[in-house]
Amino acid sequence: MDLPSTALQRAVDQFSRLPGVGRRSALRYALHLLNMSEIDVHDFSDAMMHLKSEVRHCQLCHNISDTDICPICASPKRQRGLLCVVENVQEVMAIENTQQYRGLYHVLGGVISPIDGVGIHDLTIDALIQRVASGQPDPIDEVVLALPTTMEGDTTNFYLNKQLAPLGVKVTTLARGVAIGDNLEYTDEITLGRSILNRVPFSS
Amino acid sequence: MDLPSTALQRAVDQFSRLPGVGRRSALRYALHLLNMSEIDVHDFSDAMMHLKSEVRHCQLCHNISDTDICPICASPKRQRGLLCVVENVQEVMAIENTQQYRGLYHVLGGVISPIDGVGIHDLTIDALIQRVASGQPDPIDEVVLALPTTMEGDTTNFYLNKQLAPLGVKVTTLARGVAIGDNLEYTDEITLGRSILNRVPFSS
Repeated sequence: MDLPSTALQRAVDQFSRLPGVGRRSALRYALHLLNMSEIDVHDFSDAMMHLKSEVRHCQLCHNISDTDICPICASPKRQRGLLCVVENVQEVMAIENTQQYRGLYHVLGGVISPIDGVGIHDLTIDALIQRVASGQPDPIDEVVLALPTTMEGDTTNFYLNKQLAPLGVKVTTLARGVAIGDNLEYTDEITLGRSILNRVPFSS
Repeated sequence: MDLPSTALQRAVDQFSRLPGVGRRSALRYALHLLNMSEIDVHDFSDAMMHLKSEVRHCQLCHNISDTDICPICASPKRQRGLLCVVENVQEVMAIENTQQYRGLYHVLGGVISPIDGVGIHDLTIDALIQRVASGQPDPIDEVVLALPTTMEGDTTNFYLNKQLAPLGVKVTTLARGVAIGDNLEYTDEITLGRSILNRVPFSS
């Protein structure tokens, strides 16, 4: 599709870089911006410009934060001996939304993936081991591994467990099984098979 | 969903203003920007900032253009007596993509819609009438109304026809009927009904 203006073409190219945005949506977004007021477009652009420079990361858990220590890490109401290891900040938000977890977090910033060139030192693994080993700022009793169930996630789980177990900390992982509300007929074979093998006592 | 940073919240709020973008997609876009390099984010923001100020409109047809007169209006290869009236620049692109139309365009910038507060003088209708009446820069033989088939589009068609007919110009509109490749079984009743009433001689 030939666009009639280079400025429009540039905006469309930039919108197209966003995940899941094709040329047609990008054009729709750009034309929408064109119809917005000068001030609104400035606000839009300004928010993007400052996103990268203003967003900070918590020095303790590496979650996104406005402060050096994020509100979760700073909260006296959280269980400070319980630490959940996640891949990215999205998972922190997802777990927080459940309102079922009252411990702390540690954001790895990814998982070990040699094929993508992501090694141990590209992640915050050293900081995690150091945090558990030193017992600073809080002694950790249990580490919950909440990484994705991919080959990379499993590799990372395996490595973390090997490093954490000798430190005398309990290492747990998320329960896997048939999702609540799922129809057995449509549950994938691996999940259903494992959920039978790993069946649990009935509780009413 | 509570976001852990005001800068992130602001970016998500801005992305959410784009058409068809919900909170979840907006968050995905913002986190994608966060993972981009400083320079790439600057380029993104910069393209949006300059979009509004750099995009110009053709003084003749009001299409988006880099120049005062757009390449279509400036082209000696177009049929200069044939003028297609469209709502927005998207329709110009759509018609150009068909490669079936070799005339000129006139972009109204909307359709008459009292309920949205859009009157005749908010559109480029006066310029259109003036353009046809004066025969400047080119005498127009035929005006093709290619507005949407909505109540507002029909109102605008009606008004334009009333203004243009006394000027001695031929006023036509797009052929309506069953789309090519469409199954009659699934064609809407109004379209199918009209396409029977307005049947045309068979040509092989």
